[in-house]
Order: sequence, then C-alpha cells, then structure tokens
Amino acid sequence: MAVYTEVSDEELEAFIADYDIGEVISCKGVAEGVENSNYMLRTDGGDGTYFLTLYEKRVAPGDLPYFIGLMEYLAGRNISCPLPVHGRDGRALRTLAGRPAAIVTFLDGVSVRRPRPLHCAGLGEGLARLHLAGLGFPMQRPNTLSVKQWRPLYARCAARCNEIAAGLDAELETELRALENQWPENLPVGIIHADAFPDNVFFLHDKLSGFIDFYFACNDALAYDIAICLNAWCFEEDGAFNITKARLMLAAYQAIRPLSPTELAALPLLARGAALRFLLTRLHDWLFPVDGALVKPKNPLEYLHKLRFHRDISGPGAYGIDA
Amino acid sequence: MAVYTEVSDEELEAFIADYDIGEVISCKGVAEGVENSNYMLRTDGGDGTYFLTLYEKRVAPGDLPYFIGLMEYLAGRNISCPLPVHGRDGRALRTLAGRPAAIVTFLDGVSVRRPRPLHCAGLGEGLARLHLAGLGFPMQRPNTLSVKQWRPLYARCAARCNEIAAGLDAELETELRALENQWPENLPVGIIHADAFPDNVFFLHDKLSGFIDFYFACNDALAYDIAICLNAWCFEEDGAFNITKARLMLAAYQAIRPLSPTELAALPLLARGAALRFLLTRLHDWLFPVDGALVKPKNPLEYLHKLRFHRDISGPGAYGIDA
Repeated sequence: MAVYTEVSDEELEAFIADYDIGEVISCKGVAEGVENSNYMLRTDGGDGTYFLTLYEKRVAPGDLPYFIGLMEYLAGRNISCPLPVHGRDGRALRTLAGRPAAIVTFLDGVSVRRPRPLHCAGLGEGLARLHLAGLGFPMQRPNTLSVKQWRPLYARCAARCNEIAAGLDAELETELRALENQWPENLPVGIIHADAFPDNVFFLHDKLSGFIDFYFACNDALAYDIAICLNAWCFEEDGAFNITKARLMLAAYQAIRPLSPTELAALPLLARGAALRFLLTRLHDWLFPVDGALVKPKNPLEYLHKLRFHRDISGPGAYGIDA
Repeated sequence: MAVYTEVSDEELEAFIADYDIGEVISCKGVAEGVENSNYMLRTDGGDGTYFLTLYEKRVAPGDLPYFIGLMEYLAGRNISCPLPVHGRDGRALRTLAGRPAAIVTFLDGVSVRRPRPLHCAGLGEGLARLHLAGLGFPMQRPNTLSVKQWRPLYARCAARCNEIAAGLDAELETELRALENQWPENLPVGIIHADAFPDNVFFLHDKLSGFIDFYFACNDALAYDIAICLNAWCFEEDGAFNITKARLMLAAYQAIRPLSPTELAALPLLARGAALRFLLTRLHDWLFPVDGALVKPKNPLEYLHKLRFHRDISGPGAYGIDA
C-alpha cells in the first residue's frame, strides 16, 4: 500500500487547473502500488473519476514517456488500460509536489485474489491481444530485469542467500550459468507487460476488463510474458502446478496469436528464467529491505519452488499443450 | 493509512449481494483512517460510489450501533455526513471477512491540510449545526477519553514520559490534579464529534461539505468539542496561536448556537483538558507503538505546547471573544 508523497489541497487544486476535467471534489490515497503514490480522484467534470499517480524514485523519469506513450497507444487500439489524460497544453506527463505525475482514466474492474481456470483463459486471450496491439508501438525500452541483469542482482545477494535456504547460493549459481548459456535470442519480440500478476489484471463479471501498472513494460520476447504469467497464475497456494489453468491460458493465447514451434520449445526455459527473475528481486528486497517501506517483502522461496518445477519437467507438454 | 483486512473478491461479491446497490465494479483500499480498514467501492447500481469500512479491534463492537445510528440520525437532519446503507434485510451493520462492516454513502469533499481563517469559520458554523441536530438523538455513549480516563492513561506512561521531555512527569501530574479538581460538570451536554480534526472535515470550494469519522462521538459537554477544535484548527505549524482563526470559529459557532457565560468561562479549562487528552493518547501511542502499525505515531509534544498556552492565558478573551 502506498502513499509516499502527501499532496496539499492547494498544490492539487493548481495541478488540476491545468486540465480540462473540472474541479476536485475528492482525492483519496489508494493503498496499492508498491512503486508510486496513487490517488483516486473525483472531479465535477469529464469522466468524473480518475487515477492520479506520482512517480517515486524507483521509476526512472526517463522511462515515463515510454510507459505513458504505451498506455495511450494500447488504449487507442482497443486494449483496455488506463488512458493518460492530457493537460490543456497537450502534455500528459506533468509535475506535482516535486515529482513527475500523470492523471489516467479510471479503469473499472476487480483483481482476483485466487484466479480460477476461466480467469487464466481470459488472461491468455487478453495477453495475446495486448501483444498484437503493441507490435506497432514505435518506442523502445530494453528489459532491465532480464538475463544480463540477473548476475549483478545475484552477486549482491550471494553472500547472504543461505540465510534464506541452505545451499541456495550454489543452486542459484548453477541455475544462473545454465540460463545465461541457453537463453534464447531468436524469439519473436514486441511489447511485453512483464508484470501481469493477478493484481494488475482486472475482471468484471469474470471477463477480463483491463490491464494496469505498465511500469515494467519493455521490448522483449513475447513468449517471456507468457512465462511470467505461467508462474503468477498457474500455481496453487500449496505450490502445486495446475495444468488445467496452464492449458486454458495457452489455448486462449494461441487462439489469438499462435506460438511458433521455437516459442513453444523455449517455454520451460523462459519460465525458469522468469522464476529466477522474481526470485532474485524478492531475495534482494528481503535481504535489503527499504527503510520506511510500507509493504512487507514477499517470500522469495515461493519462486525457488517454481523454478525447480520448470527445471525438472521434460518439455512444454507439462503445461498441457502438444508441442 | 490503513487496510488491515484484505477482502477476497468472492467474500466481497457475496457481501454486496445482500444490498440493493448493484454489483461491484471496483474496490480500492484507501490509505486513510487509523482505526479501521477502508475501501472505496464502486458499483453499477445505486449512487455508484460508496465507502466500505471494516471495523478493526480498536473500535468496540458494542459501540457500533451508536456510531451508525448517529450518522443516520444526523444525515436525516441536514448534517452532511456519510449515510449508512441498509442491506435488503434492513440492517446496516453487517459482517465481512470476520469483522463488523458497514457501507456508507461517499461524501464529496477534500480535507484541508492547512486551514485558513475562512475554514475555521466554516467549521464553527458546521459544528454548531451538528450540535443542535444531535440534541434529539436518543442513544447514549459516555466519553471514554475524558477526565476520569486520563489518570489511568497517565499512570501507564508516567514512568517513561521523561524520555519525551525532562520534567514531563511532574508537569502532567500537577496538570492532571488541577483538571480533576476543576473539571466543570454543569455545562450543556449533547452529542459531540470529539475528533473534528481537519482530516475529518471536508470542504468543497472553501465551504464545509461534511463531517466524517464519527468513531469517537459521544455524549459530553458541547463546549468541549469546541475546545478540541481550538487546539486542532487554531495553532500554526510553528506553534503560534492564531487568534483570528479562533475568533472567526467562535463567532460562526455562536451565530448558530450562542454559548452561555458559563460555557465561555470554561473554555480555557476545557481547552487545557482537550490538550491533555490528545497529549496523553499520543504519549501512549509513542511509548507503546502497536506492532505492525502502518501509521507513524504523532509527536506528543505538540499538545504539551498547546496545553501550556491555555494554562497561561488570563481568560477566554485570548480566543478573541468578549467574555
């Protein structure tokens, strides 16, 4: 939950005056979002309800035009996501309380805490549509949390990672080397969300109603986005992999964008990599908690378990698909 | 900021089905309120926007019918405050995620971080109207943070309060004895809000638009509510008392409900008592922070300074009124 920056009513009033959305009638800090300060804003003009985000230091200001531009590009291509609102001068990215800030449209929907198979199918279809819609987006942003960045992250944690589990140090070193050696470079690329966890995907009456939180989006292998979702959506709380959910997710994805044989064959490796990526960032946040953070670090071991699952399967058939 | 209880989408859906307000289209945890878990709820029926509160352990369940009944009573008498929404079975106080819970209407408005004189006048008028409207409310709830409760609170902190300021122990003991001896018992009583700090009072276009957070409301001397507001609204950040704000607040109050000579004469003592009450509860929360609390304890010394101000004045004339 997050409101790192308090906005005074005078600052807010002056900020809103630069938009054509009426005057503020309510502004409530929202207890979600780890990286930024978020407010739900109501005005007496325009749509009436908006989302105001102040970008805190974990988001690089240089990346903001990419994120804002991407949401605008996708929203214009029938992908349901927050649409940045422009000020009277045409700019969507502005400054409030000394931080970069933007207002976006409010997206209806509820994130599902425990996805059921039908949600996984909805996600698969939505993700494929997002991937296709993003193909023409002209800006570029490399994935700054991909295979090249894992070793420095690991190095920072290595000396202390046996505090979390005995032998973790050696296991990660071996895994890292394997992934560095085998990481595929020839897969179809495009825009990926890169953080499409259940809390960033909204549903209304069990139908996907939109994606939020594009602040990890980047250009990378499209199948890697699927791999992230296999980890985030298809394991049960007890650690069991739910092959029904995976099969439905992949089938729904492929009904919109069929995966090439190379992509299918790469899935287990990509899923191992995706597991390592979240394992390493969680490990880092666990070992080096940010002072004053309002969010409890997530347990890294959940992702060690997922990593081992993908390492030990014989092929993508374990995800319920014929490959 | 507060979301102590996470509500699953299934629980929420089942809960909302007992109301006649449509289906959930959005539910966001709100980063405000120290005592409870609050959500801003949007539905596709009724008013469309509501406030959902789960009452956590700091609120005594036995008091909830009083608080809910009071909001309903006041809202029915033209006092702008959240109106409890009844379920299909007529009940407003229900259960969600194992906690008492209620939905109330959403109140437009913004709390002012730095009240200006005109806000103090607006508050004075609004408070007087609230006091008059509450006179017929039939339920009773004693003030559980008044003079009788101060000594046990003090006793819990006494041994450690010199950690906060040298000599604080003795000063509080003296003050407590003086207030216990002189506390007036013959003032006009009624419903008081008892926590009308700037964050619990909303304004729209500089006019008071409503009161929220009635979870300290009780039956007590009406003038004591004014005393609380003198402390909460009329001191500047540098500690200076702003007599202009006090004069405007009291004049606006008296234009609606004139204060008796006894009430006026009692104001300095009531203001000392109100300062001691917040000093003691802040001291307690400072010395015994709740594990896992998401709110930083407030500095108790701010209220020591206010207490001394009221103790050292010669009479209510220091508040800008002729007494």
